[in-house]
Amino acid sequence: MFDWLTGATRLFGIVGDPIAQVRSPHIVSEALQARGLNAVLLPVHARPDDFDAVMAGLKRIANLDGLILTLPYKGRGLDHIDSIGPEAKAGGGINAMRRTADGRWHGEMFDGLGGLAALHGAGVSPTGKRVLLIGAGGAGAAIALAIALQNPACLRIAEIDPGRAAALVQQIAQIAPDLLVDLGPADPSGFDVVINASPLGMADCPQSPLLRPVNATTIVFDVVAKPDETLLMADARARGALAIGGAAMIRGQVNLIADFFAHKLDEEKEST
Amino acid sequence: MFDWLTGATRLFGIVGDPIAQVRSPHIVSEALQARGLNAVLLPVHARPDDFDAVMAGLKRIANLDGLILTLPYKGRGLDHIDSIGPEAKAGGGINAMRRTADGRWHGEMFDGLGGLAALHGAGVSPTGKRVLLIGAGGAGAAIALAIALQNPACLRIAEIDPGRAAALVQQIAQIAPDLLVDLGPADPSGFDVVINASPLGMADCPQSPLLRPVNATTIVFDVVAKPDETLLMADARARGALAIGGAAMIRGQVNLIADFFAHKLDEEKEST
Repeated sequence: MFDWLTGATRLFGIVGDPIAQVRSPHIVSEALQARGLNAVLLPVHARPDDFDAVMAGLKRIANLDGLILTLPYKGRGLDHIDSIGPEAKAGGGINAMRRTADGRWHGEMFDGLGGLAALHGAGVSPTGKRVLLIGAGGAGAAIALAIALQNPACLRIAEIDPGRAAALVQQIAQIAPDLLVDLGPADPSGFDVVINASPLGMADCPQSPLLRPVNATTIVFDVVAKPDETLLMADARARGALAIGGAAMIRGQVNLIADFFAHKLDEEKEST
Repeated sequence: MFDWLTGATRLFGIVGDPIAQVRSPHIVSEALQARGLNAVLLPVHARPDDFDAVMAGLKRIANLDGLILTLPYKGRGLDHIDSIGPEAKAGGGINAMRRTADGRWHGEMFDGLGGLAALHGAGVSPTGKRVLLIGAGGAGAAIALAIALQNPACLRIAEIDPGRAAALVQQIAQIAPDLLVDLGPADPSGFDVVINASPLGMADCPQSPLLRPVNATTIVFDVVAKPDETLLMADARARGALAIGGAAMIRGQVNLIADFFAHKLDEEKEST
């Protein structure tokens, strides 16, 4: 059971509060081993008062090479890194950080890139597309920023909280000032890609977030991971549309973070 | 490979510098799982300047329950605990610490107890026996103190460094003032139990530490773990004597530490 575990095993962690519910330890550890690393990613439970001391200690462990930050620490992670990537800069938070070759710490946000990877994995590029995004919470904002950097034709945000919607529009304006962004209803008419990043459709809230059905040429991406097929996805498929689910986003994010930890992603941006 | 690893897995660590050579992660993790814990023991490489910060951080991880301290930190571990057990008190160092039910940290030294467990595992008790101990370094001193608390008939220490020998005699006098202790040559004549805790006999130093052979009634315990059978052990067995090897001490120590981490050892002493 532990034949792989030696004194030379490299450590990674996911830091959060609570932590018992996370599935990354299993999935990311497998992904790191698949990349040829003798490594494991561990759950690290840090309570809010202990977070800074835990982070300071973890960063000084010589055989610990990277950390994932989950709720509620995506913002506070910024206090513990020396440089950040473009997604983190756009969104104001990180969900992964790694030790660089010169011993500093570099952070990036992979929530939006994971969503983008899910689209790419299904053969879809948002470049040039008219995109409707429903929900501007944590996941929605991250996806909006990642898509904004891909030059879509336009981006509509459907969000019931006006303050949250306005904040996201401002963030987008800073990284993609020429992008046409509007706020509006969750009506898919006239959009090529429809992304649901709201909780509507989760197992305890089984409804579609859309005001009207999609048509056969619409691409639907539902970030909701449970159930595997939401009502939105089932409706889309019934109409002949392509439907991508939340599992693809998790898979995309795991692969990106494992590549980031294994130093298989582009590193030139670490000097920023 | 990681089916056992979830967000609810409990963490343990072995802290040292260097760390890549340790075998405890594999062995102790197996022992913890065998005791029904969803737990893993990880190698933690802390350089001397980082040790205190790493320890402070590790202790504040809410799902980390215990640490082993290896070279060079058996002494410095004392700065990070709230209470110590009797072996640690006698020897002035700890090699394991755990979180107690009330959130404090309790330390103990298992080097000597591991040696004692190796003797007990072979059906041997040092109580009432005349014991010759060769070598008063770290392992030798820990074994001497553990044996001194078992009321042997007498204890001879054969150690070439007079200062080290005198320091151990003083430590023994504090915990077992009535025990007859002398310093002398590594001559087994007149002793029931002969323990080698010197490096003599290690793979790169294949010689017997004894001035004369043992006889058939002598019990020989060689702390040297590599090779499996040292010259001392082979000689003893050739003369019909019982010979116990260093692997039994490692096994004994792993079981004791796993019991300590799993809170299966007597806990009344934690209030001291």
